[in-house]
Amino acid sequence: MKEKFRHAKTKVGEKSFNKIVKAGKILFAKSGYHSTSINDIIAKANVAVGTYYIYFNSKLALYHYLLDEYQEKIREAAREATQGLTTRREIEREGLKAFIMYAMKEPLAYKVIWESLFVNQDLFIDYYSRFSKSYIENLKKFKTEVREDIDLETVSFILMGIANFVGLQILFKDNPHEKDVDFVVNESMKLLDRGLFK
Amino acid sequence: MKEKFRHAKTKVGEKSFNKIVKAGKILFAKSGYHSTSINDIIAKANVAVGTYYIYFNSKLALYHYLLDEYQEKIREAAREATQGLTTRREIEREGLKAFIMYAMKEPLAYKVIWESLFVNQDLFIDYYSRFSKSYIENLKKFKTEVREDIDLETVSFILMGIANFVGLQILFKDNPHEKDVDFVVNESMKLLDRGLFK
Repeated sequence: MKEKFRHAKTKVGEKSFNKIVKAGKILFAKSGYHSTSINDIIAKANVAVGTYYIYFNSKLALYHYLLDEYQEKIREAAREATQGLTTRREIEREGLKAFIMYAMKEPLAYKVIWESLFVNQDLFIDYYSRFSKSYIENLKKFKTEVREDIDLETVSFILMGIANFVGLQILFKDNPHEKDVDFVVNESMKLLDRGLFK
Repeated sequence: MKEKFRHAKTKVGEKSFNKIVKAGKILFAKSGYHSTSINDIIAKANVAVGTYYIYFNSKLALYHYLLDEYQEKIREAAREATQGLTTRREIEREGLKAFIMYAMKEPLAYKVIWESLFVNQDLFIDYYSRFSKSYIENLKKFKTEVREDIDLETVSFILMGIANFVGLQILFKDNPHEKDVDFVVNESMKLLDRGLFK
């Protein structure tokens, strides 16, 4: 059961909500979930204790919110980048690039997502299983393009693995630029062109 | 600078050393590095405080030891599984299988390794950069087999990504068996056969 959060109803409320969310990202990524207390979060966010509980019932509720927000933002970035594209090859390329560009912009995302391994392993499993399922559904729509002799669940984990690790390759660089992203994306596509597509 | 550890010099010492190491793996994987204290570790290991400091100067020293041990054990598992093999294709297949079999046997490995993101991000970068460099060196030896038109650094991150995520695909299953590993390894090889090898 996911812990619920409550949306802000006013502009001022939204500002407090966003301050709490930002503080949570920074602190969970820095010290980890277990070492961060609600007191740490409200101190960092500079809001009153009562304000926190307007939006979140617990520390876990905030963490769940962050995980869902990242999942949604990552999907959104991919959707925007692939809008109007008609081949799976183009969608794969632009989706991969969008994911890495997002990770560059939000370097805390990896930490907060992988932190789920320590918060509750089921969250981590749920996070990647949901991505895998949606990947499989999307790949199924391109039977004329995608090889039919490879198990799609395995393909979905392979593609998530490539995106995550080629993303790390970029994040490991000092001051990476979009051209670095294009480079690793193009190299990855060479492998997929022959390996995944017909 | 890595924190040093000291080897046990007697059989009894070795037993204590191993108890500390085991307790560290369990606690770091369960609660994370920051939430685990040396006191927690000695309590779990059932050794005296003084005993801990015979082998490790700090909590970080134990964590460094674990990270190095996993890196070494993973390489060792791959070396054993690929001994005598002569084609890169066979080495890649058996190395991938050995990695996943190791992860099944030592499910805490992922957590302890990814925990380095929170202990000190440089450790995480160092861990995967070292794997990448050794991968590149090994791939270079098989110029007749491995495609020469793909950047090898990118290939090394792609292969680490596939191994880690296909490994997760297996760990996510209830009670996975060797045949499940063979299945995902074979599916992954289909992609690499065309995508990576000439």
